[in-house]
Amino acid sequence: MEADPTLRLRVFDLNCWAIRYLSKRRQERVRLIGDTLRREGFDLVLLQEVWSERDYRDLKAKLGGCYPFSHYFRSGVIGSGLCVFSKFPILDTLLYQYSLNGYPYMLQHGDWFCGKSVGLVIIKISGIIFNVYVTHLHAEYCREKDAYLPHRLVQAWELAQFIRHTSKAADVVLLGGDLNMHPEDVGIRLLRGWTGLRDAFAEATRFEGCEDGCTLVPNNCFTVKAELLPFPLGIRIDYILYKAISSFTVKCEELKTTTGTAPGMDIPFSDHEAVMATLHIQKQGQAVGAGLGAAELTLVDVVTEARTEVGVGLRAAQRQRYSAGRMAVLAALGVLAGLAAGQPFPKLSFSLLAFLAVGVLLLSTGLHLFHTMEVKMLQGTEEQMRMALRVLQERLSDG
Amino acid sequence: MEADPTLRLRVFDLNCWAIRYLSKRRQERVRLIGDTLRREGFDLVLLQEVWSERDYRDLKAKLGGCYPFSHYFRSGVIGSGLCVFSKFPILDTLLYQYSLNGYPYMLQHGDWFCGKSVGLVIIKISGIIFNVYVTHLHAEYCREKDAYLPHRLVQAWELAQFIRHTSKAADVVLLGGDLNMHPEDVGIRLLRGWTGLRDAFAEATRFEGCEDGCTLVPNNCFTVKAELLPFPLGIRIDYILYKAISSFTVKCEELKTTTGTAPGMDIPFSDHEAVMATLHIQKQGQAVGAGLGAAELTLVDVVTEARTEVGVGLRAAQRQRYSAGRMAVLAALGVLAGLAAGQPFPKLSFSLLAFLAVGVLLLSTGLHLFHTMEVKMLQGTEEQMRMALRVLQERLSDG
Repeated sequence: MEADPTLRLRVFDLNCWAIRYLSKRRQERVRLIGDTLRREGFDLVLLQEVWSERDYRDLKAKLGGCYPFSHYFRSGVIGSGLCVFSKFPILDTLLYQYSLNGYPYMLQHGDWFCGKSVGLVIIKISGIIFNVYVTHLHAEYCREKDAYLPHRLVQAWELAQFIRHTSKAADVVLLGGDLNMHPEDVGIRLLRGWTGLRDAFAEATRFEGCEDGCTLVPNNCFTVKAELLPFPLGIRIDYILYKAISSFTVKCEELKTTTGTAPGMDIPFSDHEAVMATLHIQKQGQAVGAGLGAAELTLVDVVTEARTEVGVGLRAAQRQRYSAGRMAVLAALGVLAGLAAGQPFPKLSFSLLAFLAVGVLLLSTGLHLFHTMEVKMLQGTEEQMRMALRVLQERLSDG
Repeated sequence: MEADPTLRLRVFDLNCWAIRYLSKRRQERVRLIGDTLRREGFDLVLLQEVWSERDYRDLKAKLGGCYPFSHYFRSGVIGSGLCVFSKFPILDTLLYQYSLNGYPYMLQHGDWFCGKSVGLVIIKISGIIFNVYVTHLHAEYCREKDAYLPHRLVQAWELAQFIRHTSKAADVVLLGGDLNMHPEDVGIRLLRGWTGLRDAFAEATRFEGCEDGCTLVPNNCFTVKAELLPFPLGIRIDYILYKAISSFTVKCEELKTTTGTAPGMDIPFSDHEAVMATLHIQKQGQAVGAGLGAAELTLVDVVTEARTEVGVGLRAAQRQRYSAGRMAVLAALGVLAGLAAGQPFPKLSFSLLAFLAVGVLLLSTGLHLFHTMEVKMLQGTEEQMRMALRVLQERLSDG
């Protein structure tokens, strides 16, 4: 490969849906994923939702011969679920945790308890520096009334900022992961616009797999069919994105997805389809300058749109903070009134009421603190976006 | 300044100790800090422990004329306490939260509740890109038996990694803040070695201020005298560090500290002394290559030493995780036994015992989760350090 002026890189990306005790046929699927990765011999493997460190260690043991380098990103109590396997040496790693990740009281979704984050590994292949990012953003759950949109936008913004700030010495940037957004969503447009990353599916010379490149499809036996009712073909929410920074070009020769079942098997790898890209990286004569123009104008629109959505989320968070605060004050007054009045009720009901009032007080205080933090993070993101718009507009008026 | 081949930059750094309801004479001191900053007209002001956003807004209103650009880093419920005022436009910002920050049950120290983090602002002055970092690491509290050393080392490592990964397009890197470590401590040596940052105090041509550059001194009326008993001169824990990345050189012409009271006043700005540096930045003919040699060998030693300390912390955390887990199991058994036995005790003592058992169960489960997270973060850091040592040793054997 050293002698070849063109580097060919095969990348595998999959949300593995490997949650102990919860995901169906987990061990069987993890074994299947491991067997396939060993057989196919990709150059780079980016996995999400490997929540159990034991699953990672099993994969590592199985893949050691084919992928001698790997990294598991640890974070929070549960972990980040992110890991990378590589044929080439990993030189360095860094993990960044998103500041917002859903609501603690949405227990059925559980996102809040997982340390959603973005992992960076730096890999050098034939003298070319690759900054490889793997991430998993907050899920959508309900497209019509998407309460999580502002949180996902904050995550998309933080992801874009983290990539921009850490990739300045890279020759090539790769991002793989479950972004939980449709290709035309404002978060994807923001991420792509603000980082300059290109979508391997849109750029691919050849494509093979689910129609429209969908990665959550009805004919995968593990997907929840009701959630996909509005989308008969499925949805595309798992991505491989890339760009060349300095004097390199990257082209996507081929993009593939699995199609509901693992190749040659009777069950799928996961409830998500795997995305597999073959990239061509070539050195070119001179560095491409960052030209101004149409792209910048579109970017101003996208950042403005995202900022508006974050503003909507901010006002909702401010309302919720106020409600939780008022509830806490009322509960505190209730507790005090009960104490002052002695025991006007029979003993048992009094104890129950006191318990209830104290419970409500604790809960609403906790909620108030949570929404206070949420307000701060949304304000911070809105301010950063405002700063970005100022800088963009200055560049446009200068250029 | 555009025409001058040498750029002269005056930097001010201070831990403001501005905690509402807790810090003595806070409002008076914040006013004093604002007045001095306006009068002195520094180029860059890096503040820590500005916990109240209202204090920031008051400063911003007062300093708008002299420092038209500023940024307050929001994070967590309480915030990061970090802010920056600048004469020159701030182009971009990024905040990174450390993964470990003391113990939730050490209520008297309270660090756990503050979102300890490092803020980055990017500033362009006369075409030179400055990456300016401001941070505040976990305090020490007890030097003899420093239970927080592993956490502070994780923070120092994460700070160094964050600076390395985000500063690759910078011409000059500046770091100001309360690092809560003595100059010879392993954390400072790790930070300096791993980033290449130099200590303005050690490099300064002229120095004026507290002996040995101390920033926590006995003749500051707000310092806790008992804590400084082993150090009659005080200790130096607030720093301005710098380095030039590309074809620039930075020199520290002058370093000053306040000396217990604010210049011309009868009270100090804070319980910490302010650090003020005058830096000379000059373009030089060619970029300085990253030479191998003595520095790399020292670095191997420092990273090894830090890794040993993190390993000690890891084993302590594993023991504490085990104890908390065992306690949780015992408490759960107690609750179950009580339920099974009916009420062998008089009613009141039974209720009290049940309450106690449930309380212990909740508490020990919480502790178990916390130490699980602590173990993961310490393991993660140890692994990153091992990777760093591998890369360093490969470079040494290649070079």
